[in-house]
Amino acid sequence: MWTSPSPGDSRPRRPTIANTFLLQPIGYVRSPLRSRQAAPRQGNEGAPNAWLELDQSVGPGLDRVALGQEMVLLTWLHEARRDVLHVHPRGDRTAPLHGVFATRAPDRPNPIGLHRVRVLARDGCRLEVGPLEALDGTPVLDLKPVLAEDEA
Amino acid sequence: MWTSPSPGDSRPRRPTIANTFLLQPIGYVRSPLRSRQAAPRQGNEGAPNAWLELDQSVGPGLDRVALGQEMVLLTWLHEARRDVLHVHPRGDRTAPLHGVFATRAPDRPNPIGLHRVRVLARDGCRLEVGPLEALDGTPVLDLKPVLAEDEA
Repeated sequence: MWTSPSPGDSRPRRPTIANTFLLQPIGYVRSPLRSRQAAPRQGNEGAPNAWLELDQSVGPGLDRVALGQEMVLLTWLHEARRDVLHVHPRGDRTAPLHGVFATRAPDRPNPIGLHRVRVLARDGCRLEVGPLEALDGTPVLDLKPVLAEDEA
Repeated sequence: MWTSPSPGDSRPRRPTIANTFLLQPIGYVRSPLRSRQAAPRQGNEGAPNAWLELDQSVGPGLDRVALGQEMVLLTWLHEARRDVLHVHPRGDRTAPLHGVFATRAPDRPNPIGLHRVRVLARDGCRLEVGPLEALDGTPVLDLKPVLAEDEA
């Protein structure tokens, strides 16, 4: 764990095996969206519905997820660049450069996507949700119910 | 990538190196909260403010993050169990068991924390935010501005 730098502090400032974490996808997105160029930037900008195909090993984790419920879907934006720290927001090259943490751009050091979706149907370990701007084949990391705090 | 199972499909159903992803923390939380027992369950339940100590290598990513701005902070819940699929919501053992994806419990396959915070101060690569229920030493993964869509 990093601490505040101090004279003579020789602790590593770069990631090492000891301070990295391994994500294992719990499933994948099945969507008609096949390319980043075709995908809307946010789900509420005309995105289609999609199916989340979850691995059978995590199926029990869906117990009491309700149809109609609003969820935050977390994905791994597998086509993103991780070495980018500045972007033009929404790809508008006339807009000034912003730090990636001031934007929702997919390109960022840990490209985790947040998507607010509604649960539309369930078939075993398959969950239909929408609207979703994520591409077909996008790895799914997590699903969480929306809290009042998210909208505070 | 997984596909729908079909007879004779021999593709692996378990994570392999090819379908796992490595997270590298961009920094760490500095907070007076030192134990999971002492931490509120959500930021709006009396959590303190905290400092995010970001690595200098990602500092430029903070350009145009504004004081007073509301952000979604993503953390790695390093004390969580990843092999849990059912929990009693909010630890209430009189409540029926829920699948972890129907709750915001920290214990889940990919224990990524979502925290809605306000930016209170900045000092170089250190950002004061609050309120935050994450423990001291929690790895920081990402910061994103809150979108209208998050509150739709």
